[in-house]
Amino acid sequence: MARAPPAQKRRERPEAFVIGAAHTRFGEAWESSFRDLMTEAGLAAIQDAGIAGEDIDAVFVGTMSTGKLLGQAHTAPLLLEGAGLADRHLPATRVEAAGASGGLAFRQAVQLIRSGSADVVVVGGVEKMTDVSDADAQALAASGIDQEWEHFFGATDAALHAILAKRHMAEFGTTREHLAHVAVKNHKHGAGNPLAQFRKAIELDTVLRSPVIADPLTMFDAAPLCDGAACVVLASDKVAGGYRKDAVRVAGSGQGSDTLALHSRSTLTALRATEHAASRAYREAGVSAADVQVAEVNDAYTIGEILAIEDLGLVKKGEGGPATQQGRTGFGSACVVNPSGGLKARGHPAGATGIAQVCEVVWQLRGKADGRQVKDPRIGLAHNTGGTGATAVVHVLEAAE
Amino acid sequence: MARAPPAQKRRERPEAFVIGAAHTRFGEAWESSFRDLMTEAGLAAIQDAGIAGEDIDAVFVGTMSTGKLLGQAHTAPLLLEGAGLADRHLPATRVEAAGASGGLAFRQAVQLIRSGSADVVVVGGVEKMTDVSDADAQALAASGIDQEWEHFFGATDAALHAILAKRHMAEFGTTREHLAHVAVKNHKHGAGNPLAQFRKAIELDTVLRSPVIADPLTMFDAAPLCDGAACVVLASDKVAGGYRKDAVRVAGSGQGSDTLALHSRSTLTALRATEHAASRAYREAGVSAADVQVAEVNDAYTIGEILAIEDLGLVKKGEGGPATQQGRTGFGSACVVNPSGGLKARGHPAGATGIAQVCEVVWQLRGKADGRQVKDPRIGLAHNTGGTGATAVVHVLEAAE
Repeated sequence: MARAPPAQKRRERPEAFVIGAAHTRFGEAWESSFRDLMTEAGLAAIQDAGIAGEDIDAVFVGTMSTGKLLGQAHTAPLLLEGAGLADRHLPATRVEAAGASGGLAFRQAVQLIRSGSADVVVVGGVEKMTDVSDADAQALAASGIDQEWEHFFGATDAALHAILAKRHMAEFGTTREHLAHVAVKNHKHGAGNPLAQFRKAIELDTVLRSPVIADPLTMFDAAPLCDGAACVVLASDKVAGGYRKDAVRVAGSGQGSDTLALHSRSTLTALRATEHAASRAYREAGVSAADVQVAEVNDAYTIGEILAIEDLGLVKKGEGGPATQQGRTGFGSACVVNPSGGLKARGHPAGATGIAQVCEVVWQLRGKADGRQVKDPRIGLAHNTGGTGATAVVHVLEAAE
Repeated sequence: MARAPPAQKRRERPEAFVIGAAHTRFGEAWESSFRDLMTEAGLAAIQDAGIAGEDIDAVFVGTMSTGKLLGQAHTAPLLLEGAGLADRHLPATRVEAAGASGGLAFRQAVQLIRSGSADVVVVGGVEKMTDVSDADAQALAASGIDQEWEHFFGATDAALHAILAKRHMAEFGTTREHLAHVAVKNHKHGAGNPLAQFRKAIELDTVLRSPVIADPLTMFDAAPLCDGAACVVLASDKVAGGYRKDAVRVAGSGQGSDTLALHSRSTLTALRATEHAASRAYREAGVSAADVQVAEVNDAYTIGEILAIEDLGLVKKGEGGPATQQGRTGFGSACVVNPSGGLKARGHPAGATGIAQVCEVVWQLRGKADGRQVKDPRIGLAHNTGGTGATAVVHVLEAAE
């Protein structure tokens, strides 16, 4: 060592608990600015947690588009301003990783609590994506893939996901219908979620006959970019129980990465970033995939959910399609996948998605997901990816006893 | 508590040390992409630290403009790709807070090490801001202030800093010449820095007679937005000494925020975000402002440095102007401010600036700042702000014994 250890007493490593969770209705919020949405979710989460403004030590915000679409970078201090807390001058940090921005912001909050520097941390995700031109929306989606080596040459987010789907079909016999069953299941689930953008069950034919956006994917294989905000309150073990008796423990946190460009990866039939993130999260939590009873996973495209349930170990590699068709990821199965409706039916305001996933898992673990409650779950999982999977974040959450 | 404490043994809280530091020459890098710059700085920092690629546990990147100017959000995984480390699938996180993006990324890395989840973390900052239209560059600078309440109505970053300057002049008698002396000092310092954009001393008249950009500020009161990348390697106390005997301790880390819009603040003659960040950083480090012997502070505009040295407690409130004119912040004084040349002369590639400040302080504390070495410093400070100060980050660094 370069120097002697510091003189002050070393502290124990704290644990993080979720004590508050809320999100706005997702969809087209023409009459709300992104600040309005962020403030609505933030105040609701603070109320749900039962904390006062002066209890908060720091805030994080996950957002992808505010700088590019709204001309507003430097977004994090606005969460405090909206909550009337600007005069406390608290640390406020924005995190960005395309569609994984929310999950990644959540992870930073967990790390801050584990570092011992904070006891109560508020973390939000927000996006206002509908009130823009189609060209801007497309450019935004493309900014999560590789600009220099993919988008510059004409590739789009949808086209690259179609490549992932085609390779999975070629290698494992996954069919067009398997993909469609993901959308059918998630729309069915979304019908039970009052905060979802789409609350209507659909038929298999609706997916198969909708316009092709990138063969083999049709419009109903893709989640809608939309407006919305989500917010959760995290607390250290030292203070969590003082606020809520049903605080949900963050048992494991994992994060993985990969090349932005698909052509540089070692495989197209698995997302290595997800595998790495899951492995770390399971190890920290001391659980395996078989213990997970409810999972919110990233289905920005239907092939995304098939890859996710395989790479998370919820089903064997190559069996994601048949498992979905057979109902092994729906209500009544060992692990219910996307009971909220997922990105597909809840809607996908990029940076808000990762936080909304945590909200749903928390509500499920509290036993308060009215109309869509999974039966007595103890272990839940949230899985958030960005672009075509260059960033993946996995959290394992555990219900209070 | 909602549940019993976890069964596993709790770990001690680790400390963070800087073991590697490097940045590219700042300026107009027409022949390098932002990836090239990031890779150049990253590989140089890794070499400086003496680590191998397999030692790295996570990376962070601070950048403001890649999404808006280059169409490339989701930037962090590219740092690993550039270093040939993509196949390790490590956590890679982008942080954004306008001009404070770099300092904030550094703070996330410190927190990760303190959380006990990582032993070696690489943190970079990068920007490619010259190869764009004037309109895009102006829109980018404006995205760090309040879009809805300031920029939409015509205010600019420069105009708001001019308001800060005018208020300081009215309240404390700060003069136009006081402001100009900041630029003169920092250009003098930059002349000794081989990596600075501007390496030429200037006269007081050069500042006073340059074109007015927002009265009372002239062109020479503003730091140049430019291209560049910077990178540092952090290590936990457990492993730092194995790499370098002169590892620099991160003794204190503080972060503060304020409203984005100036009109909502309680004062215009101090940046409360800086005061809060400094207070936390000093307390953690167990030092006071009087102990700081070298400081890199945010002089995006000359008024910024005057506010910084006051709000950091290096001089009394209101004395920043006279102190600068009297040479109390130059070489030979108790605390040398911006020996690198600061943002003014080193150049200001927004997200790279906060990391470059840490590089300079580390080089000074190692005693290796050839041509601009402060005499035997033991305590150094880095101060990074975004927009008109809605985010501030302060780190106190301590030399090896």
